Amino acid sequence: MTGLFIVFEGGDGVGKSTQARRLAAWLGERGHEVVRTFEPGDTPAGREIRRLVLDHASGELDPRAEALLYAADKAQHLYELVRPALQRGAVVVCDRYIDSMLAYQGAGRVLDLGEVSRIARWATADLRPDLTVLLDLDPRQAVSGKSVKDKLESAGESFHDRARQHFLDLAAERPADYLVLPARDSEAAIAAAVADRVAALLSDRSGTLTS
Amino acid sequence: MTGLFIVFEGGDGVGKSTQARRLAAWLGERGHEVVRTFEPGDTPAGREIRRLVLDHASGELDPRAEALLYAADKAQHLYELVRPALQRGAVVVCDRYIDSMLAYQGAGRVLDLGEVSRIARWATADLRPDLTVLLDLDPRQAVSGKSVKDKLESAGESFHDRARQHFLDLAAERPADYLVLPARDSEAAIAAAVADRVAALLSDRSGTLTS
Repeated sequence: MTGLFIVFEGGDGVGKSTQARRLAAWLGERGHEVVRTFEPGDTPAGREIRRLVLDHASGELDPRAEALLYAADKAQHLYELVRPALQRGAVVVCDRYIDSMLAYQGAGRVLDLGEVSRIARWATADLRPDLTVLLDLDPRQAVSGKSVKDKLESAGESFHDRARQHFLDLAAERPADYLVLPARDSEAAIAAAVADRVAALLSDRSGTLTS
Repeated sequence: MTGLFIVFEGGDGVGKSTQARRLAAWLGERGHEVVRTFEPGDTPAGREIRRLVLDHASGELDPRAEALLYAADKAQHLYELVRPALQRGAVVVCDRYIDSMLAYQGAGRVLDLGEVSRIARWATADLRPDLTVLLDLDPRQAVSGKSVKDKLESAGESFHDRARQHFLDLAAERPADYLVLPARDSEAAIAAAVADRVAALLSDRSGTLTS
């Protein structure tokens, strides 16, 4: 694979898509082919899978079936979109990937997270991002989702708190592959930090290619 | 689980649904609640999953995505239909189960069969049938599928030959849990052999319940 696979992770309302857009623009200005994508649901089959999950939510869907459907979406997304782009040397900028699946499944506390992780790794043939940017934020401070915030404030340690901790734990397992940034930093400061790190990766990559 | 889980396996055109119907009738005459079902696709979500797989066939679907979708169908089928029936003491008579998934995925030779097996076992929380009836037949002698037959005759050892061997290998791994019958035997002879075996299981079960 000659391209670069960059993933943005974090809870809802932390600014992932804003930063993905800024990074894509920055890369485009420097002449790189950029493919912006997201999970779940950014292929025709993936859209049907996502609709199926949402249509059968509220207890109708077995938790294992749901996890397997999300894993199928990932497999298809890599097959159809991510791998071909990487193979032709593009930079893939993806909004959410395996960490989101693990953080939310883990926060849900229904399934064994080690088993979900093994399935997600199998679905993706263990393709790991070159860099994961984790935009970290206390769920109480997320800009979107008023109702979520109300629920959090009344419920104490909650689903979204647990998801946040899972994101941080995943980053801590492989610090070299992550850039963890406080999502409350200014949009420009975050964009600059991301661009610096991606520039370093591109420089390493071209060094490898020419050496 | 107080019920009994009986599965019919084997290639296309070997008479699985005929025998499932006969067994269900035999059980019904003896006062048992019988739930007849099949895989893949015998739930609302399962039907959508099956349609999705068929719509995106012919190379559009990643093999891992396809396997994960079939596994999701299994998880949902057990959650919604099989487990509740077993819990209320019914006899579930199912046309195809994990062995079909493994036999055909194995015959396709794209994915590692051990990994597919682990995913199928996870999807089903390792619920195994009390009895699997394997109706064994040389694919060249299957009554349905003229075009398949033509292809087989010209291709020598083929996909369907490999699937048959996988079915037999799975039965050989756990002989006590299988009844392997030549599908060319008469319909009545097969039905009698199945009924004898199921009668023995029911007798063991009621012995267990009353002891």
